[in-house]
Amino acid sequence: MEFEIDQARFLSALTLAQTVADRRSTMPVLANVLLRATADDQLVCCATDMMIALTETVACKVSSPGSLTLGVRHLHNVVRTLPTGTVKVTSLDNSWAQILASRSEFKLMGMPEGDFPELPDPGEITFTEFASHKLVDLIEKTLFSVSTDEARVNLNGALFESDGQHATMVSTDGHRLTKYSVPLEGPQLSSGIIIPRKGMDEIRKVLNRVEGTCKLGLSDQYLFVQADALTLSVKLNSVTFPPWQQVVPKDFQRRAGIGREELMGALRQAAVIAPEKTATVKLQLDKGNLQLHADNPELGAINLDLPVDYEGSSLTAGFNANYLIDALGAVDSERIYLDFQGELDPCVLRPAADESKPEAEAPDFLAVVMPMRI
Amino acid sequence: MEFEIDQARFLSALTLAQTVADRRSTMPVLANVLLRATADDQLVCCATDMMIALTETVACKVSSPGSLTLGVRHLHNVVRTLPTGTVKVTSLDNSWAQILASRSEFKLMGMPEGDFPELPDPGEITFTEFASHKLVDLIEKTLFSVSTDEARVNLNGALFESDGQHATMVSTDGHRLTKYSVPLEGPQLSSGIIIPRKGMDEIRKVLNRVEGTCKLGLSDQYLFVQADALTLSVKLNSVTFPPWQQVVPKDFQRRAGIGREELMGALRQAAVIAPEKTATVKLQLDKGNLQLHADNPELGAINLDLPVDYEGSSLTAGFNANYLIDALGAVDSERIYLDFQGELDPCVLRPAADESKPEAEAPDFLAVVMPMRI
Repeated sequence: MEFEIDQARFLSALTLAQTVADRRSTMPVLANVLLRATADDQLVCCATDMMIALTETVACKVSSPGSLTLGVRHLHNVVRTLPTGTVKVTSLDNSWAQILASRSEFKLMGMPEGDFPELPDPGEITFTEFASHKLVDLIEKTLFSVSTDEARVNLNGALFESDGQHATMVSTDGHRLTKYSVPLEGPQLSSGIIIPRKGMDEIRKVLNRVEGTCKLGLSDQYLFVQADALTLSVKLNSVTFPPWQQVVPKDFQRRAGIGREELMGALRQAAVIAPEKTATVKLQLDKGNLQLHADNPELGAINLDLPVDYEGSSLTAGFNANYLIDALGAVDSERIYLDFQGELDPCVLRPAADESKPEAEAPDFLAVVMPMRI
Repeated sequence: MEFEIDQARFLSALTLAQTVADRRSTMPVLANVLLRATADDQLVCCATDMMIALTETVACKVSSPGSLTLGVRHLHNVVRTLPTGTVKVTSLDNSWAQILASRSEFKLMGMPEGDFPELPDPGEITFTEFASHKLVDLIEKTLFSVSTDEARVNLNGALFESDGQHATMVSTDGHRLTKYSVPLEGPQLSSGIIIPRKGMDEIRKVLNRVEGTCKLGLSDQYLFVQADALTLSVKLNSVTFPPWQQVVPKDFQRRAGIGREELMGALRQAAVIAPEKTATVKLQLDKGNLQLHADNPELGAINLDLPVDYEGSSLTAGFNANYLIDALGAVDSERIYLDFQGELDPCVLRPAADESKPEAEAPDFLAVVMPMRI
């Protein structure tokens, strides 16, 4: 195998491959990138951790087709230090590779390409087109409340549905839940799927590099995302997402309207004082006023008053300040609503419609945060 | 005690105090900042780790003079989250403090001010004026080769001398040595002192915030640096710096001239392959050519050729690539010289004079790097 490739392009492909490859696996070959140079002057770079697989095709000049695998971290480090210009890669005996660039000659030890696992093949499945930025938006507004506990397989990913009219993503870690829906006519997935957390993150990274549309396809076990010369496959867990609609209160008795930035700033102040582990902050809602209170036996206390649009009866409830801050961070609107039932019921945070555009509806976003005992 | 102060000014003083305060000390009060509000509308902020002490005086509006101490990390976090504007600090009973800003009221637990250690007092010592940027330059060009081993007290700081004509700083960690001298007429310190590593770093931070000149003064035990409203004291260790002149070769038999950037780039490539711990790279010098070679049994090898100005006999020697990279990073000139004696002698790196300014002398900088067995 022998090919010549532009240093910057090679580096860009390796940078992405590196985020997928798994250096801590018991299968050492997963720390490698598979480089396949084809007769039609393309270099196919593949990396996988057995859950996620990424394939990127880059134009190059192939003088001898073939393939080899190299440790992606070191190869990335090598290519990163090379000057701009052309890099020449040649396979040597015993899975070694020679890398020539400018005045440098590297020899790197690889692994037999036969050890590299077969990547999932989309085969004959149907792909549907999606606006990349909408998919990224769905991921970015829900990723924060996906459970980080990998043992809880059904919560360690977000539910993704697309019914031909709307695409919806829902995530929950058991303490809070986020739902975001965007109008998306056309694309229809046969069923709701749970995209694992790491897969969401990888899809976001890949789609942030492309413009326009991407294509999604579902096989029995995999979600495939194609964009430009990239194909990403994410292994889906055959688990069922919890019945999330039951968690969202159908109704609310108290609604407070408040500026997003003001509430965020106030919660950040309270979070400095609140106990680090629980971040408990007490919200006391009275006519026209929201008082935040946090105290910490090791540190001190804070009281903070914010003017709010609220006319109902008083209410006192406790919440994790960081959960509210996370939810506010996923909202773009200038004002938000906090909707409450009783003192031990969850709080629902929703964006308010933009007042300067009376016709525009508020985004279909909601964040449910469970209360804490105070 | 009660004073009002601008949030940004308060934050800036606390940010600096935080770098000095010691959260890991067995004396809990060292994690605190001492705030002293004086009758002439000044706030004096003090922090110390018993080795370094920092005092900054900030203008404020004092309605009741007095003092208190508060955990600087939390106070910094609190003030950081406050909106711009005025912050009011009032001492309460039992070493508590109230902090009022905008709509927020914080209560923070402090410690009795009597627990805070007395800070070194310059008293009647003589101060001499220095150009701040020259002192920063001396520190930045030698800090990298100060030993990080705090047990080796005489190497865990840089030697600083100022004889009325030149100021010189020398640092060594036993494997390499750096010397940098700048012309500095006037200021004269009675003797050479060893400024501990942490003190160098703190002086640099403080002086990077001021323009113009600073003042240096020496007492028996302390170096004092005064600049603007800041006073820094650094405790000096009464140890002797090793006889560094003996380490610098008096002469050289081989001198190679080479572009600084080219050599830096080449060494970075070699360092990617070289064993992480030793970073050993082999330099082979022949007429007109410098070859770098590194190999790593776990990874591979690299050969790299660079054109150099060299007419002497061949030489092969091994060095730590990172030591050479560090030294090159402290040099501003376009070209440098590598001076060698034999294969087991140290290499000396010196900047070459700028060719476009024939009258200008090369900076008085040198870096000695000890060879490694290859």
